[in-house]
Amino acid sequence: MQIDGVEIEDTFAEGFDIYVSKFLITGATEKFARIAADETVGFGSSVIMCPAEAGIDRYLPPTVTPDGRPGYVVMVCHPKKDDLEHQLLERIGQCVLTAPTTAVFDDMGAEADEKLKIGFKLKYFGDGYEKEGTVAGRTVYKIPIMSGEFVIEGELGIKRGVAGGNFFVMAENQTAALVGAEVAVDAIKDVEGTITPFPGGIVASGSKVGSNKYKFMAATTNEKFCPSLCDEVEGDIPEGIKGIYEIVIDGVSEAAVKKAMKVGVAAAVKVPGVKRIYAGNYGGTLGAYQIWLKDLI
Amino acid sequence: MQIDGVEIEDTFAEGFDIYVSKFLITGATEKFARIAADETVGFGSSVIMCPAEAGIDRYLPPTVTPDGRPGYVVMVCHPKKDDLEHQLLERIGQCVLTAPTTAVFDDMGAEADEKLKIGFKLKYFGDGYEKEGTVAGRTVYKIPIMSGEFVIEGELGIKRGVAGGNFFVMAENQTAALVGAEVAVDAIKDVEGTITPFPGGIVASGSKVGSNKYKFMAATTNEKFCPSLCDEVEGDIPEGIKGIYEIVIDGVSEAAVKKAMKVGVAAAVKVPGVKRIYAGNYGGTLGAYQIWLKDLI
Amino acid sequence: MQIDGVEIEDTFAEGFDIYVSKFLITGATEKFARIAADETVGFGSSVIMCPAEAGIDRYLPPTVTPDGRPGYVVMVCHPKKDDLEHQLLERIGQCVLTAPTTAVFDDMGAEADEKLKIGFKLKYFGDGYEKEGTVAGRTVYKIPIMSGEFVIEGELGIKRGVAGGNFFVMAENQTAALVGAEVAVDAIKDVEGTITPFPGGIVASGSKVGSNKYKFMAATTNEKFCPSLCDEVEGDIPEGIKGIYEIVIDGVSEAAVKKAMKVGVAAAVKVPGVKRIYAGNYGGTLGAYQIWLKDLI
Amino acid sequence: MQIDGVEIEDTFAEGFDIYVSKFLITGATEKFARIAADETVGFGSSVIMCPAEAGIDRYLPPTVTPDGRPGYVVMVCHPKKDDLEHQLLERIGQCVLTAPTTAVFDDMGAEADEKLKIGFKLKYFGDGYEKEGTVAGRTVYKIPIMSGEFVIEGELGIKRGVAGGNFFVMAENQTAALVGAEVAVDAIKDVEGTITPFPGGIVASGSKVGSNKYKFMAATTNEKFCPSLCDEVEGDIPEGIKGIYEIVIDGVSEAAVKKAMKVGVAAAVKVPGVKRIYAGNYGGTLGAYQIWLKDLI
Repeated sequence: MQIDGVEIEDTFAEGFDIYVSKFLITGATEKFARIAADETVGFGSSVIMCPAEAGIDRYLPPTVTPDGRPGYVVMVCHPKKDDLEHQLLERIGQCVLTAPTTAVFDDMGAEADEKLKIGFKLKYFGDGYEKEGTVAGRTVYKIPIMSGEFVIEGELGIKRGVAGGNFFVMAENQTAALVGAEVAVDAIKDVEGTITPFPGGIVASGSKVGSNKYKFMAATTNEKFCPSLCDEVEGDIPEGIKGIYEIVIDGVSEAAVKKAMKVGVAAAVKVPGVKRIYAGNYGGTLGAYQIWLKDLI
Repeated sequence: MQIDGVEIEDTFAEGFDIYVSKFLITGATEKFARIAADETVGFGSSVIMCPAEAGIDRYLPPTVTPDGRPGYVVMVCHPKKDDLEHQLLERIGQCVLTAPTTAVFDDMGAEADEKLKIGFKLKYFGDGYEKEGTVAGRTVYKIPIMSGEFVIEGELGIKRGVAGGNFFVMAENQTAALVGAEVAVDAIKDVEGTITPFPGGIVASGSKVGSNKYKFMAATTNEKFCPSLCDEVEGDIPEGIKGIYEIVIDGVSEAAVKKAMKVGVAAAVKVPGVKRIYAGNYGGTLGAYQIWLKDLI
Repeated sequence: MQIDGVEIEDTFAEGFDIYVSKFLITGATEKFARIAADETVGFGSSVIMCPAEAGIDRYLPPTVTPDGRPGYVVMVCHPKKDDLEHQLLERIGQCVLTAPTTAVFDDMGAEADEKLKIGFKLKYFGDGYEKEGTVAGRTVYKIPIMSGEFVIEGELGIKRGVAGGNFFVMAENQTAALVGAEVAVDAIKDVEGTITPFPGGIVASGSKVGSNKYKFMAATTNEKFCPSLCDEVEGDIPEGIKGIYEIVIDGVSEAAVKKAMKVGVAAAVKVPGVKRIYAGNYGGTLGAYQIWLKDLI
Repeated sequence: MQIDGVEIEDTFAEGFDIYVSKFLITGATEKFARIAADETVGFGSSVIMCPAEAGIDRYLPPTVTPDGRPGYVVMVCHPKKDDLEHQLLERIGQCVLTAPTTAVFDDMGAEADEKLKIGFKLKYFGDGYEKEGTVAGRTVYKIPIMSGEFVIEGELGIKRGVAGGNFFVMAENQTAALVGAEVAVDAIKDVEGTITPFPGGIVASGSKVGSNKYKFMAATTNEKFCPSLCDEVEGDIPEGIKGIYEIVIDGVSEAAVKKAMKVGVAAAVKVPGVKRIYAGNYGGTLGAYQIWLKDLI
């Protein structure tokens, strides 16, 4: 199948279950909300070696937030619920509570499977000076800090979501693949309930499970997908492809991930030099979800 | 003592020993170097609950980098050497190797106390397809990845540095303190070998060791420094001060931290409404370094 | 009247008729769309001495633009229709056609009073190699350029709109007024059909018509509103106010300007230290529109 | 000649005389200095239809500026001295004086051919309340405004400089040329005394003088350099080139322009897919300066 002259491979992205939190960080200005959000989601590309997968979901203008201030919704994800709770306490405690002018509110709402008492636990930082209160009908804790007060909703919702949504942008050279991947990430930014956790939303290095040569390695480069090894390795790279980047997506639901893949692919194929869209899977043996590229169009 | 009408408290910042790594991340463009650097230093405000303290040291234009591409020097710090090595493997492996178009080079040079074999260890990701090479006289490994090659210097230097450099910007209200803190961070950006690891470089929440009320808490808010508690608590906030932010600095040496404090204070006192500069210490009982504010002027 | 403890003056903003154009600049990525938009709207704060009043209205994700690429809607305004047309030819010809990967589409749609043949005229740059075509049902011209093709819709709509919407953020000091003004601009960014044409959306220098001392000056500082002249001049600054910034708004309609004022004021009053909102007028003698602050609440 | 496998054409850039101003805009923070600088240099790509050629030269940290605040040096250029003076009055009066927290200082220093009384003339905006003063040994005027005081040095230096420095990045496709052009601009940002006035520093549309078909046009597309016309026009595009972007440079001197070209070319050739560097000239018949590409290496 083709869109705009770009070949869409007849394959699917294989998604996995993951626990997802989604909460709003507001600030006195958009700048301060973003500073806290950026710190909170850093070192969060993949749970292979990062303590969580994290990213910015979307921006909310002051007209629609509980406290009438600008904010960013962020998502922090982990396969294990306990680890997710731990990460929320650490990331909010160290990257939001410490950041100028911020507040934290739940953004999962009725979609939540469960509520974690994150604000309730962080309030102990107030050493008895914290106060319970209400903002826009939500129960919050107001913790006195050096620069004023840190406000956080008592409970933050989490739910089972989907990790590992993905597609590959394949192009006639590296820069075309890169620009295609960039605009795909631009497009996914507006899809509610999804993040692209890798740096700038883009994965530069595909991997395979295990290793042929180094038995102590859990994951190594996928040599069949390395354009620079074309002369050494009989690879799986289609004819005419010299540059490949992958977009990985975590979302609150299969529908959200699917929508992100759809708008990402639609944007990438507009870039001159992009030749082919592909997706990664394990033959359907490992993950609970199969999102077929042909169903996106 | 006063500068520009701002009172400089007769006190000192108390610094602690910490292990510091300092390395350069280059990219095809300034944008891609920055994306990788931002991901690498996120979730890195304080080792109280973050796995490291990390930040961007400075930007290097393509004219002065080993591979002739733009780059950011980042610093990752930890009190324990083993933990620092672990963090380097994880943060570079997950946040730089995975990021588009990047390479990593040592930036500690002859200042290093010791070299860690970070590139040497990460090269195993290449599964035997990696190659040793040379860039600007440095031994590097070239690891084939999906989008081309990831280049990393075999060894990255670390040294003992100084954590906990600090000063407080006190002002007639919160926003004046905030703008004073912002410009202090702007100024420190150009001081080689230093970072301000908190979100946007600024600490909004001071803490005290332990708790009066909640014995299970290792650290809680410093109620004597909370302007919002003025009516409840007999505090240590000077007359006329309604807003306080702190700048925390980690550096490769006491001299670097001192220079960062000096330029930060000099910038902050230019902001209208800033009234007083203060510094935090434990009476000299805990840390190995005492940096006196009066010596900065 | 008060909101959140901030006094809302019982006065109105006086608006004037102005011709408004509103068009979309798309690019290969969000970055390149923004670069072209920024260049296009620069040197465009006030027609007192700038050739136009211009600003970015809002961002459009690739999912909703005619060519499926990310884009920014910009507005260029002028009291005279001929000057507006001239400005469109110059600004699009020099700041968009010359910018990497861009295209231009009408964004006034059915709201337009009139269509200007901007694309039709710029197509002559193609020297006969330009081609007429269609994008999403719109008639466009495709002009071959060095880097590919520049696409522009044949006609761009203009309409009579409203200039001079405004409010003043008054605070206990300069930085509180500044942060209040910043977040007001953040809020107005999401109001369709409006711009805040001054630098960063904020006016630092109010003026009065004419001069007391220098008869050759058409406009000079409004000394009655200068906090630094409190001791010399009997001014109009309310008690306790030490910092004042103004937000000026141009919009496609009185309703759009009113909405922008409403969300801007609502955001500004959340900032600690902001004490009073005020608006500027000429007693209703000059402008066709009166937007009362009390009607915004 | 080749660098890194990229062909360097044996040709030269032809430069022209132009009057150059270079001044510093400082602000309370880096953000506010940049906001004013961006507004000031907008609508300033080419004097063909813009009122000036303008751009940001470089950033100065607070440690080295006259008022100890962060700032951006900007350059505004025009072939005619009177027009340049007019532009300075308009752009500083409308885009800096109106911007929050700014001040303006000369940055031409002893290099100036002549001093223009820009600050002296703008001081009349103070309507008699302005005051003469001194900052770091420079004579300045302090003009009371609504948000405080605007400070501007009395005289700003100008000199004869060089316009039209240029080179072309030619690549195997559009995106490789674009990324090559981006990093060239990144590199030139650090060359003191130069700007790249086009949007994002990059020219997407080359032109020829006059027109073949439309006699009323002063300049039209250079069809011999349009990759999309390869089948229709016998062009001058070398074999294998599908994407072309140009960098145009204005500088305070031939040496500065030459240095900018040198570092720009050196950065561009590092990008995969870039194949050839070229430069534009009129056979040496029009401009006073010839900068040969081979002399840059």
